[in-house]
Amino acid sequence: MTQNIYDNDEFFAGYGQLPRSVEGLDGAPEWPALRAMLPDLHGLKVLDLGCGFGWFCRWAREQGAAQVLGIDVSEKMLARARATTEDGAITYARADMEQLELPAGSFGLVYSSLALHYIANLDRLMAEVYRSLVPGGSLVVSVEHPIFTAPARAGWSSDAAGHKSWPVDSYLDEGPRSTDWLAKGVIKQHRMLATYLKMLIRLGFTLSHVEEWAPTEEQIAVHPRWADERQRPPFLLIGARR
Amino acid sequence: MTQNIYDNDEFFAGYGQLPRSVEGLDGAPEWPALRAMLPDLHGLKVLDLGCGFGWFCRWAREQGAAQVLGIDVSEKMLARARATTEDGAITYARADMEQLELPAGSFGLVYSSLALHYIANLDRLMAEVYRSLVPGGSLVVSVEHPIFTAPARAGWSSDAAGHKSWPVDSYLDEGPRSTDWLAKGVIKQHRMLATYLKMLIRLGFTLSHVEEWAPTEEQIAVHPRWADERQRPPFLLIGARR
Repeated sequence: MTQNIYDNDEFFAGYGQLPRSVEGLDGAPEWPALRAMLPDLHGLKVLDLGCGFGWFCRWAREQGAAQVLGIDVSEKMLARARATTEDGAITYARADMEQLELPAGSFGLVYSSLALHYIANLDRLMAEVYRSLVPGGSLVVSVEHPIFTAPARAGWSSDAAGHKSWPVDSYLDEGPRSTDWLAKGVIKQHRMLATYLKMLIRLGFTLSHVEEWAPTEEQIAVHPRWADERQRPPFLLIGARR
Repeated sequence: MTQNIYDNDEFFAGYGQLPRSVEGLDGAPEWPALRAMLPDLHGLKVLDLGCGFGWFCRWAREQGAAQVLGIDVSEKMLARARATTEDGAITYARADMEQLELPAGSFGLVYSSLALHYIANLDRLMAEVYRSLVPGGSLVVSVEHPIFTAPARAGWSSDAAGHKSWPVDSYLDEGPRSTDWLAKGVIKQHRMLATYLKMLIRLGFTLSHVEEWAPTEEQIAVHPRWADERQRPPFLLIGARR
């Protein structure tokens, strides 16, 4: 089973204080870029893999989605999602994405925000996702960028003049990385960027969008300490169609 | 016009001594990966952008290509290509790829090895390439990898234990980079990986393959000093179809 770090008390407490947890989608700086990749949701059945507190599920319904299924491994996150949702067309279900089975030909959109880099057997899950989409259906996902996940010990380096760089190593060495983000020993899976794309192509997807996201100059004007993120992209966004 | 660094005496002398210049395709360690992305060449018209000494043009004919057009900006390289080619179905032509005009609907394959990262207006060239392909025709290219081209001052960093990393900065800052490779002040264009892919998708291409190439373990066993290249990929290979 996937490491269920979100139900760790320390992690959950820290995660619950992030802007994206408190403010929802508008607290996530990559949201405008991800939103721009979404199809018209009117009448679609939508699946959210790693739905967390349910912010996207509720937003999808506001955009006209017919039904929304939110999947997460965290009981604590699902409890809060249920407590803040009054909508019979939204269903939250607890499942391990390593084992998930989905109905065939069902969804018009499968969405996932910053969850898939926790999955070890991503091939299996993506094959299941492909099968679960209607023909022409969309996949829109974000993951931590491979440049971000590659290093054996990730972190910034500064030269004498204070100029920052992100030392990359082990990029070709795919597999688990242990990081101390909100809690000790959080396990993420490093994959090469090409591995994500080749996997989708091999499964039959047509790639429609690839974005190496970093804050815009406008966002940096409001949040100056985000400027370093333009040295290397923190997130990878991918759009594809069945 | 593109910087014509290949006709610089110092650069040309150095380039002529590289294994890929002396041994041809088999002297280029990424060649097996690139070759695996090529379609069956029998009966195809083939275009090679940045043909250099003509190694690929001659190989394409051996594989059954009907006609091959090799384009390069370097007079010196074309002179050597012509001097080592006896084949009326191969044509070498001097052209600036920034200004190149191609016949519409002509080629079954457009190939380019490590040349496109010298091109400033790549959108224009790729639109021309798309137009020049027959429907279903293939594009197979290699460029220096964006992780490799990004840094303002590219180079390895070593820690006290001798562990190497490749400090990345300026990844989001696309544009020219000046390097001292074989000669001083060689100008390359840094683009994000997503920029290459989005350009092709926008022009109408369907992406069929993306490879972040680094030497295989088998190649490193023969050439141990290549091991560092697995810390970050030196080349990006892209396959697409019109």
